[in-house]
Amino acid sequence: MLNLKNVVEPTLLLDEEKCRSNIRFMAEKARRHHLRFRPHFKTHQSLAIGDWFRDEGVDRITVSSLNMALYFAGGGWPDITVAFPANVREMAKIEHLARNVKLNLLVTAGETVKALDMKMPKKVGVYIKVDTGYHRAGIPSERIGEIDALLKTVTRSRRLFFRGFLAHNGHTYAAGSRSEIKRIHHDALGRMNRLKDHYLRSFPDLELSLGDTPACSVAEDFRGIDEIRPGNFVFYDVMQYRLDACSRDRIAVCLACPITGRSRHPDELLIYGGAVHLSKEYVTENDGGRNYGMIVKLSHAGWTASSPGLRLIHLSQEHGLVGGMLRPVPGFKPGGILGVLPIHSCLTANLMKGYLTLTGKRIANLAGNLTFPVI
Amino acid sequence: MLNLKNVVEPTLLLDEEKCRSNIRFMAEKARRHHLRFRPHFKTHQSLAIGDWFRDEGVDRITVSSLNMALYFAGGGWPDITVAFPANVREMAKIEHLARNVKLNLLVTAGETVKALDMKMPKKVGVYIKVDTGYHRAGIPSERIGEIDALLKTVTRSRRLFFRGFLAHNGHTYAAGSRSEIKRIHHDALGRMNRLKDHYLRSFPDLELSLGDTPACSVAEDFRGIDEIRPGNFVFYDVMQYRLDACSRDRIAVCLACPITGRSRHPDELLIYGGAVHLSKEYVTENDGGRNYGMIVKLSHAGWTASSPGLRLIHLSQEHGLVGGMLRPVPGFKPGGILGVLPIHSCLTANLMKGYLTLTGKRIANLAGNLTFPVI
Repeated sequence: MLNLKNVVEPTLLLDEEKCRSNIRFMAEKARRHHLRFRPHFKTHQSLAIGDWFRDEGVDRITVSSLNMALYFAGGGWPDITVAFPANVREMAKIEHLARNVKLNLLVTAGETVKALDMKMPKKVGVYIKVDTGYHRAGIPSERIGEIDALLKTVTRSRRLFFRGFLAHNGHTYAAGSRSEIKRIHHDALGRMNRLKDHYLRSFPDLELSLGDTPACSVAEDFRGIDEIRPGNFVFYDVMQYRLDACSRDRIAVCLACPITGRSRHPDELLIYGGAVHLSKEYVTENDGGRNYGMIVKLSHAGWTASSPGLRLIHLSQEHGLVGGMLRPVPGFKPGGILGVLPIHSCLTANLMKGYLTLTGKRIANLAGNLTFPVI
Repeated sequence: MLNLKNVVEPTLLLDEEKCRSNIRFMAEKARRHHLRFRPHFKTHQSLAIGDWFRDEGVDRITVSSLNMALYFAGGGWPDITVAFPANVREMAKIEHLARNVKLNLLVTAGETVKALDMKMPKKVGVYIKVDTGYHRAGIPSERIGEIDALLKTVTRSRRLFFRGFLAHNGHTYAAGSRSEIKRIHHDALGRMNRLKDHYLRSFPDLELSLGDTPACSVAEDFRGIDEIRPGNFVFYDVMQYRLDACSRDRIAVCLACPITGRSRHPDELLIYGGAVHLSKEYVTENDGGRNYGMIVKLSHAGWTASSPGLRLIHLSQEHGLVGGMLRPVPGFKPGGILGVLPIHSCLTANLMKGYLTLTGKRIANLAGNLTFPVI
């Protein structure tokens, strides 16, 4: 049980039950669709929470950096995909990982393939990262000439073997509705399957790996896909709730913030909780104002809904300003405490360096374990 | 000298010479205007950089949290103002600080004053935080009735003594020009001096404390002010440069980022460097696009100007997308490295947990020293 009196500074509360239920939901969905489930661990970045995935039968993971791969490899995860175009400046880390786990890397450039091939001590799988519409990273999926050229470099290498095509449809985060998420997902499925059709004769084992949280949460069509890699669903957040990718009661983390003052306006409150706790991520409300987090009431049992319009309207380094308090809320006064559902839980978890569960367990994550310098 | 080969992951470079020159500039300005200089240490959060302030004669500081106050008190700083409305839930930390340093707190609410008075082991100075136009925290400076009521609670307390009025004009950050910064500053000076005139007879020792980096950088009128508390000037950043609060060559930190891929467009590059390194702070360019950081070239001597239009146009957790490369820049290719001048150096320094100086020194800051849980 949570003793709120002991919560004296911004603290990231974690509802283990909701979190485990989110993990179970996605693991079951993957099983139902005969998809390999390789969850992205960049959201929670925690060995302890990783164990909750093991309880659902997960034995391979995705990470977004080599430091994160080293952390989870050290925690006994034997099969890791680093879902970021390989950074050859960190070759020593890549070599270490290649020796110790089943490692998959992403490539988008010929010079990266050549640099890796010269140094890898063992066979390492590579995915060609393709761009299916997000326009952030990867070779555009329709540029067969560029893909051919890169694939040739991979097949000529001695230490790298081609595993397939990998994409991240981050543009689902800009969708306005479930149907738009599905439309984007459907378009990406088409692009990925065209690649599979084109290359399957030459590479009969090639796989397709896809997986953003919005589409994995709401889509039911995964034809041709071999693997999904969602990450954010472990906690969800206000952004996912606003996309209708989850219901509000699935959000599994909440930043507890002390109330330290009133404001010029009677409907506002000052809290200790700012950009160094939540990040500056926001969503825009219908009234044009920014929303840096949704406000909830805290109790020893967790958090419950509060006045629906209540939100963080301003955020600086350590200060947050709560707006929209239409009538006084009991306990919302200096010395009290309230909860903020984060806009983007990945960034909040990284800033907060760990969690306090509703049963009082402290769980550190990678950001709280990293000393400076990293290596 | 910087060995760029050893820079393999996002690394916050610090130009000690520029940083010391920024400190000297502000210390001299304070001396010239007969102002007490109480720099805000929330930007650098580092004992080692604190020593550079000592070299300029600084012996009292401002911080934004009690954890930061404990860190600097432990490093031998004897006189600390916590520039955040006092969080009475952290009473144990406040008591510890009150016993060990000359402590000043901020109050905005009567219940805070009463809670502090019951617990303080020694006399503690308090400032009434007033709102001079930023509308974030504090009692609006024109509400004399509210100020009177709070002041009465302070004077009736046994352990707190009234030190004066403190304001932060954060709205200078939204100014469009030097003249607008000066106009906002001038308005705040008027408000603060009206308070001084009103209360000076009853409190002949009352002080006025002011100080945002934009105004402290460009204003020359500080009439009536006793103390300034700028912080960001120690590093400056793109936001300050765009406000014309500093020239670009005063920016003393730069995030070195490995280049890991090309993009769909020939004028774009993918770098390893994202929201967990820089924060999601951005400025909006004239073309309506977002700027998450300005791109510079790195050499063993530090950073130099690059193509002026080059900027970070997209940022996710670990990925950054550089846009605006009108022609190929030598060395800007996968495996290479480039520099990003941060939009908001306070948030970047907090995320990066420390610095690498151009002479190869590693300097940790508070965020890199905090283990989880904090206490």
